[in-house]
Amino acid sequence: MKVTGISHIAIAGDNPEQTRILYEDILGLISGSSEVVEQEGVTTHFYKAGESTIELLEPLSAETPVGKFLEKRGPGLHHIALEVEGLDAYVRKLKEAGIMLLSDEPTLGAHDMRIIFIHPKSAGGVLIELCEHQ
Amino acid sequence: MKVTGISHIAIAGDNPEQTRILYEDILGLISGSSEVVEQEGVTTHFYKAGESTIELLEPLSAETPVGKFLEKRGPGLHHIALEVEGLDAYVRKLKEAGIMLLSDEPTLGAHDMRIIFIHPKSAGGVLIELCEHQ
Repeated sequence: MKVTGISHIAIAGDNPEQTRILYEDILGLISGSSEVVEQEGVTTHFYKAGESTIELLEPLSAETPVGKFLEKRGPGLHHIALEVEGLDAYVRKLKEAGIMLLSDEPTLGAHDMRIIFIHPKSAGGVLIELCEHQ
Repeated sequence: MKVTGISHIAIAGDNPEQTRILYEDILGLISGSSEVVEQEGVTTHFYKAGESTIELLEPLSAETPVGKFLEKRGPGLHHIALEVEGLDAYVRKLKEAGIMLLSDEPTLGAHDMRIIFIHPKSAGGVLIELCEHQ
């Protein structure tokens, strides 16, 4: 039961071409695969940064959580994802401590990882994803 | 000239004890040193997450950039820092591409690193720090 690193930093974006030019052409990050995650209502584009990735989220529609985030706050940092070992034990520990989660149990995210989100109200205003390889 | 990884994720906070309980007591992250960075107007607290760190920023006063950020947006994700090799070459390349920077040349940040910030307007709403060990 431990945090092994930062899996990714997720950014809500409305201008993927500007992002591509900066991250790929100028900073030289390797661009990974794109993936539609229907459950989260987003298309994700990954850019590799060392052991971690920067994940650009584009909403599938204005009605999705990321679509609403963009309308309310504009493009910018959306959440961070910590890779863990022992996700189920973490979920029990978080619940015992009264930490608010966005779902009762882990769900399936991009790259076939099991994920759960900690509510920003319980985490200093930061949406934190915990994720674990299956 | 390359990005070697995510150096840290910086969070603007107004409740360091809530953050400490979540990151240290519940998630089990190792707490690092605190440092006052007068130039940035913050106290920083580091939590180790694999190869990266999560950096909690507390403003030294309401008049500092982070103080104003908290007043305007509340606590939450503030910026990401990418560790690079070849910072000066990156600065030249960014300027050539017309990317807005917060300073003309790199300055000295926490942990004796040379740093420069890319303006969120040139980076999809994200404040991006590039940093390099001296």
